[in-house]
Parts: sequence; C-alpha cells; structure tokens
Amino acid sequence: MNASAAPDNCIFCGIASGRLPASIVHEDSEWMAVMDIHPIRRGHVLLIPRRHVSRLAELDGVEQRRLFLLADAILKAQEAAGYASGGSNLLLNDGVAANQHIPHLHLHCIPRRPGDSLGFGLRLLARTVGLFGFGIKHAELDTIAAAIRAQLQVPPSQ
Amino acid sequence: MNASAAPDNCIFCGIASGRLPASIVHEDSEWMAVMDIHPIRRGHVLLIPRRHVSRLAELDGVEQRRLFLLADAILKAQEAAGYASGGSNLLLNDGVAANQHIPHLHLHCIPRRPGDSLGFGLRLLARTVGLFGFGIKHAELDTIAAAIRAQLQVPPSQ
Repeated sequence: MNASAAPDNCIFCGIASGRLPASIVHEDSEWMAVMDIHPIRRGHVLLIPRRHVSRLAELDGVEQRRLFLLADAILKAQEAAGYASGGSNLLLNDGVAANQHIPHLHLHCIPRRPGDSLGFGLRLLARTVGLFGFGIKHAELDTIAAAIRAQLQVPPSQ
Repeated sequence: MNASAAPDNCIFCGIASGRLPASIVHEDSEWMAVMDIHPIRRGHVLLIPRRHVSRLAELDGVEQRRLFLLADAILKAQEAAGYASGGSNLLLNDGVAANQHIPHLHLHCIPRRPGDSLGFGLRLLARTVGLFGFGIKHAELDTIAAAIRAQLQVPPSQ
C-alpha cells in the first residue's frame, strides 16, 4: 500500500492507533468499519483502511477489491440488523474537491428506508457544504455497531 | 451473473441492446460506461452491467471486482480529460429505497472541481427527490464521451 504522508491530527489514524474512541463494527489488520458520528441515516458505517491513504488510486487492485467486498458485507449486515430496508448507498468522496472532509480514505455505507429521500437529501446537502450538526452519543452508536457486527459475515481474504 | 427479471421498458437494457441511443465511453461484452443525460457535474459517467441486475448483491465477487476496477479507470480518465480536478465521487444507489430511479444497477462516477460543492449538493438533492431537470444534448455528451474515452486505460481482465 502506498501511503500518503499522514497528518499528525488525522482522526482516522487516531482511531486506527486506539488513541481516539470509535464505535467499531469490524477491525482487522488492514481495515476498520466504524459508525459515522454524524450519520446521514441511522446505521451509517464508514469503511476505512488502517494506513493513511487519501485517494482510491493509492490503493492497489487487491486492496480496492477488499474494500468493496467488505462494503458489500456491511450493506448486507446493515439490512440483516434492520437498519436498511429496500436500499443502501455506497458513497466515496475521493479527494478534497469531492467533499472529502477527512483526508484519509473512507467509504460511506448508508442504510436507507422507503420514504426517507428528503431527509437523506437534505442531510447529505448539509454535509456537502460542511454543516455536520450534532453527533450521536457514543453509547447509542456502540449499540448500533454491536447490532450490525452481530450480522456481519466477513468475507474470507483472497 | 444472476439476472433479475428485466422489465420490458428498462432504459439500460435498451441501451445495451442498441435499441436506445447513448453516449458511450466504453463497452465490452459485459459492461458499458455511458454519459448520464442529467449530469450532476459535467462529465458524469454511469458504469452499467449489460445484463439486467438490480442490486450489488446480485453480482458475484468477480463481477463486483470488475465494476470497481472499471470505476477506478473511469475516474482517472475523467481527470486526465480535464473534467475532474482534485476529486471525484463514486455513488451507488443500491435499491429503490436508495433513490435508484432505474432498477438496473449503475454506478455513478462524478468528476468534481474545487468550489463546486453547493452546485453538486443542490443538484444531488434535486435528483434525490426525483427532479432531474433538462438533459444535455446528445451531441455535447458524445463530445465529452469521446474526450474521456481517449484517456481511458481499460484494466486487463483478471
């Protein structure tokens, strides 16, 4: 994995090192899945490489494959845990110009429900222009993380 | 590839069969990359399997891998052709509840530029609630498709 220079204050590097708290759905030697503290919809998970890379193009083919394989597993677990019904969004903001507010690659896995389009759209718009609002309490995120984790079937490494 | 039942009026099946026109960036025996006729940003490409599948989970692991490998190549080509500068979004609306307006899987590859967040956010919100606005003329989309195609390095099949 080619690594970008990690800034000292990178939040996701802080979570990867255990220095900062997070509600963890999954972690292994290369990847973490954690709850977004400003969820666009309830159950919103971020899939993050442990090492500091900024852009998709910095992952090699094997790593890209693993990222999207894990994303597929997260979507299934969110649905099995009751957070998604009839749909989910995968969203990668790849680069600062694409509203990547934290310059450490992360793939948004956002569970959806019928009829939540306006709420989803407005909250996405707010985040796009940098308005994140209040975060959810860690205890609640921990509960959601545990529910998703209980349904997660981590695909075997290939 | 497990195929969903294809509705007779599926737009993307129509494009895949040549019955409907499209501005094509790339096509091979399994995949197509075409210009979105209601682009969120100029140069917006859709990556589509030829066969009618609705959801990501209907693709097998090899197909999922190919989808995201092609997406990475499209993002690079959009940037090389001058449509992206400093960022791009990958967006998968997976399922009707996730604003998948055409029930045939398609991955949005959206080039971005610094300072376009409000325009991006508003246009995404409009599409999220079903307001697509006017499409762009096919001749202009053909020109953009040709420019991106000229930069596209299709990854070898694996």
